[in-house]
Amino acid sequence: MEQLLELIRQAGSVAVVTHTSADGDALGSSLAMALTLEHMGKKVAVFLEEAVPKTLDFLPGQQHIGTNFEQNFDLAICLDTSDMHRLGKRAQLYTNARHKITIDHHTTNNMEADGLWIDTKAAAVGEMVYFLAAALQVPISHDMAICLYTAITTDTGGFRYSNTRPESHLIAAELLKKEIPFADISKKVFEVVTYSKMSLMKKTLDNLTLFHNGRIAFSWINHDDIQPINAQSDDFEGLVNVGRNLEGVEVSLFLREEKPGHYKGSLRANDYVDVARIANLFSGGGHKRAAGFSMDGKLEDIRELLLAEIEKVV
Amino acid sequence: MEQLLELIRQAGSVAVVTHTSADGDALGSSLAMALTLEHMGKKVAVFLEEAVPKTLDFLPGQQHIGTNFEQNFDLAICLDTSDMHRLGKRAQLYTNARHKITIDHHTTNNMEADGLWIDTKAAAVGEMVYFLAAALQVPISHDMAICLYTAITTDTGGFRYSNTRPESHLIAAELLKKEIPFADISKKVFEVVTYSKMSLMKKTLDNLTLFHNGRIAFSWINHDDIQPINAQSDDFEGLVNVGRNLEGVEVSLFLREEKPGHYKGSLRANDYVDVARIANLFSGGGHKRAAGFSMDGKLEDIRELLLAEIEKVV
Repeated sequence: MEQLLELIRQAGSVAVVTHTSADGDALGSSLAMALTLEHMGKKVAVFLEEAVPKTLDFLPGQQHIGTNFEQNFDLAICLDTSDMHRLGKRAQLYTNARHKITIDHHTTNNMEADGLWIDTKAAAVGEMVYFLAAALQVPISHDMAICLYTAITTDTGGFRYSNTRPESHLIAAELLKKEIPFADISKKVFEVVTYSKMSLMKKTLDNLTLFHNGRIAFSWINHDDIQPINAQSDDFEGLVNVGRNLEGVEVSLFLREEKPGHYKGSLRANDYVDVARIANLFSGGGHKRAAGFSMDGKLEDIRELLLAEIEKVV
Repeated sequence: MEQLLELIRQAGSVAVVTHTSADGDALGSSLAMALTLEHMGKKVAVFLEEAVPKTLDFLPGQQHIGTNFEQNFDLAICLDTSDMHRLGKRAQLYTNARHKITIDHHTTNNMEADGLWIDTKAAAVGEMVYFLAAALQVPISHDMAICLYTAITTDTGGFRYSNTRPESHLIAAELLKKEIPFADISKKVFEVVTYSKMSLMKKTLDNLTLFHNGRIAFSWINHDDIQPINAQSDDFEGLVNVGRNLEGVEVSLFLREEKPGHYKGSLRANDYVDVARIANLFSGGGHKRAAGFSMDGKLEDIRELLLAEIEKVV
């Protein structure tokens, strides 16, 4: 850790990078890191692969977002990224930097670095940046607090996911003392629904069908329904939970026709069914209570194949 | 405070009461209070007006729920209740007790008591019971932690409402150290949807109409839609938010036909419209961003009356 702090202290210019499709933790911790480095008097730039998502457009520190990928920096700090491939075209910034630091909380991480800090217990990299700022004796500003709160609340699903730990709340308590608009932030990141998401929700509700005495929920979205609405990838997130959250349901299956005849399947379980095992049967994978797979065929055929397996264990 | 602690220490038997339609904070803090008193060796009973709601059926301490309303107790502790009327038929237990304590966080409270502790800054009465247990030198058990976590998370909307304060998170951090199943609790209290709620959500989505370039959302539920589905009052909660949460919407209006030709109206604003002022025009009231009213008439007429007022300020 002391070596990592020393690399930061000695650098004059720093590039901050994170994974593609940056989410609240990736972007929030990157911008908080940039604000920390700015406070230390360093030249700093955060490099992104895509535009800042609309749900995160309130994040302070965006003046530090850089555009010139050709520069060479004294130091590159890579956050929340377990693999070089996930840096997209910004991999060169990391490779070309004189020194490299990686800070991450994923269980597997194969990044090469002069300073590596992995804490798999951290609910969010935002927690790690909070502790790093303290170690660098940089006070948490109002702007940094907004970035770090967003990082932590998004990666813990609003302190609800099982990765939340006492430290997540302890840090949140300190961030609230900076009088940040946490209620507005929460509304923005958790509640605002796009037109296309609402239209997908409606379809999902309309198609929802129950099997096995209401223990299995099934729903789907056809390619024809997706075509006209210009949906972004996060609009599909959580549609499988419409079925999962219905009282009495143990397993929820959701099929999305990505291309005509090609389906992406999502499986969720509430209490005991191991859906990763079911997804494995169809060359998919995931966690015990959240898994996925892909399959070509007809909706009815895929549904029947999956239902047969789910009914064995539900 | 010392007087209040003394009243508790000296009592041999204690009745714990809270408001009718007990929610997560009312019930969670009451059961945690009972467990605290049990640990002190007292005879204790919690008296409820209704059965424990299904979403809260996991709360520990329910063995202390009493049924004999005719007893006289040394002490009655009333939690989260600002007015005697809200005690329903359990008011007699409070009146008949030798000593009375009221612990509450509402801004107005007109309860009579020998010991009165009002903290309007507390996000939940659960926070107050947490501090009370500490003052009584009762350690927080696993069961108490589950009750207190439920109390705090429900009254803060999962740490999202503006009433959340640093202390809410500090206490949550301590409760998480007891290894409580907070992820399961959160799922139970925030995510599980009943069949009737889902059916109402579907109707609300189907009826959703936008006005004023998408700045105003309007939806409704007819009496004919409510009749067949045996909906409970909490099934209607949050339906006005379907419109409020849609991107670009400032004001959401929701009408529920409670009886044929009689409508209950809900108004929500996101950023700047004072909907309490609009509700006042129709003999309703509420807060700036959340208000309500009642009106007799035809759906179309009520809608037009309201839209005319909302359009002036949106």
